Amino acid sequence: MNQCFTKQEKVRFKHVDYAGIVFYPRFLEMLNDLVEDWFEEALDRPFSEMHETNGIPTVDLKVQFKNAARLGELLTKKLWVKELKNSSIVCGFEFINQNEKTVLEGEVTLVNVKIQEDRYSIKAEAFNEEIKNKISQYLLS
Amino acid sequence: MNQCFTKQEKVRFKHVDYAGIVFYPRFLEMLNDLVEDWFEEALDRPFSEMHETNGIPTVDLKVQFKNAARLGELLTKKLWVKELKNSSIVCGFEFINQNEKTVLEGEVTLVNVKIQEDRYSIKAEAFNEEIKNKISQYLLS
Amino acid sequence: MNQCFTKQEKVRFKHVDYAGIVFYPRFLEMLNDLVEDWFEEALDRPFSEMHETNGIPTVDLKVQFKNAARLGELLTKKLWVKELKNSSIVCGFEFINQNEKTVLEGEVTLVNVKIQEDRYSIKAEAFNEEIKNKISQYLLS
Amino acid sequence: MNQCFTKQEKVRFKHVDYAGIVFYPRFLEMLNDLVEDWFEEALDRPFSEMHETNGIPTVDLKVQFKNAARLGELLTKKLWVKELKNSSIVCGFEFINQNEKTVLEGEVTLVNVKIQEDRYSIKAEAFNEEIKNKISQYLLS
Repeated sequence: MNQCFTKQEKVRFKHVDYAGIVFYPRFLEMLNDLVEDWFEEALDRPFSEMHETNGIPTVDLKVQFKNAARLGELLTKKLWVKELKNSSIVCGFEFINQNEKTVLEGEVTLVNVKIQEDRYSIKAEAFNEEIKNKISQYLLS
Repeated sequence: MNQCFTKQEKVRFKHVDYAGIVFYPRFLEMLNDLVEDWFEEALDRPFSEMHETNGIPTVDLKVQFKNAARLGELLTKKLWVKELKNSSIVCGFEFINQNEKTVLEGEVTLVNVKIQEDRYSIKAEAFNEEIKNKISQYLLS
Repeated sequence: MNQCFTKQEKVRFKHVDYAGIVFYPRFLEMLNDLVEDWFEEALDRPFSEMHETNGIPTVDLKVQFKNAARLGELLTKKLWVKELKNSSIVCGFEFINQNEKTVLEGEVTLVNVKIQEDRYSIKAEAFNEEIKNKISQYLLS
Repeated sequence: MNQCFTKQEKVRFKHVDYAGIVFYPRFLEMLNDLVEDWFEEALDRPFSEMHETNGIPTVDLKVQFKNAARLGELLTKKLWVKELKNSSIVCGFEFINQNEKTVLEGEVTLVNVKIQEDRYSIKAEAFNEEIKNKISQYLLS
């Protein structure tokens, strides 16, 4: 039975703008944290190890901002897999507030890359079977 | 003859991640700066005045990240209007590097809102004719 | 018996720079989070309520950065009170890594202010007895 | 005749907090930008090149925040050298607003380091004569 990966994050002073609501680039930091937690806690690929040799750059991002989030609100962040390809994944995500309203939702495409010898260039690399199995547990149609 | 609104921004130390490339939430800060400059320099609505009574929250964002941007690179940021509605605008944007490669491109939807008396709630408000005229000079089909 | 206020925070991808170590302005965000947690959890003044009418701007900051902190490290953040004045407090702080090495230490002075009617100007305001009592439980000489 | 290194920066939407004033960790990003510009424009050591082999981590920071800075204000940022040692420099800095009021002032100590073969460890390295000469043109007593 497949599932979402779920974490909670509180809206903090550093996240909010002059209007008292989350400045949208901060939401993308929250999203990056969610992906980072998913890789570490669910896929067994902590960023601190993975980034020595590999990376998972974001190549496509779509977000609809539905409701503002205010200082002190506790957000539930959900991530799941919409599509698992050879060397990339399309993830869906949704942030929900305490009133169960959707704050934002969208999808993000991540590519598995290998950092080349020169430490500059990168090249897409197929996921191995082990991580494919782990990722596929979060596939939701 | 319609045009893009164009600004340049250098990739700085604070923008880059462990891989030496711009961390994508920082690109969205650069995009917000571009919108801010457009409102101030082209539309005559500096954020410092506008945000007393109004706002232009981002409600929809789509970005394709095409090429990495590295520390020290000078990016040219372009913004134009794809659609001007009663109280919202859909803008196209593109960031280009010094080799004339597209770093990222996408579209962002902004809604003109009025902050209500309670300073909390907001309500969509039609653009007035003056600003509509200014915005429409950046309409590119 | 007086005590430190203590929280843990993990070094995340968003915190680190090109060298793979925390970019120092991010440490100050971590410090601000610590003060925010202390006000909410220990002093019963959550920022989400306090900032409607008051603020506690930082007026003085001294930090010695002793050891780098890397992606994935778990930091223990400690805060205590060095001096409690009429409308300000001097707090000491220290961040320690998992090897019990000091990452950074310093002191920060916060002033209790009241936001004036115009919503622009602020004025120092004496702490009331209730909060003074709570703060003084973190006084360490 | 020695001098300050001077740059201007506008307070932007991304810098300000709920109270409409610059959130202090953002001031430290502005300070880091100032140091970065100084190294590139005055010392001929652009960060994009220097960070391949070296670094200049901040080891000590003292800041007094004197006046708030608001959205839209143009700040003049000044940097000078207070002390030039073998492998470190103590710089003074001051940010001034358009009314010639000091927004903040302080001092920061930077250490010249060499990144070791393993790409992890760093070691203090003496400045060479060429850069010492350039730095000393900003020595103000």
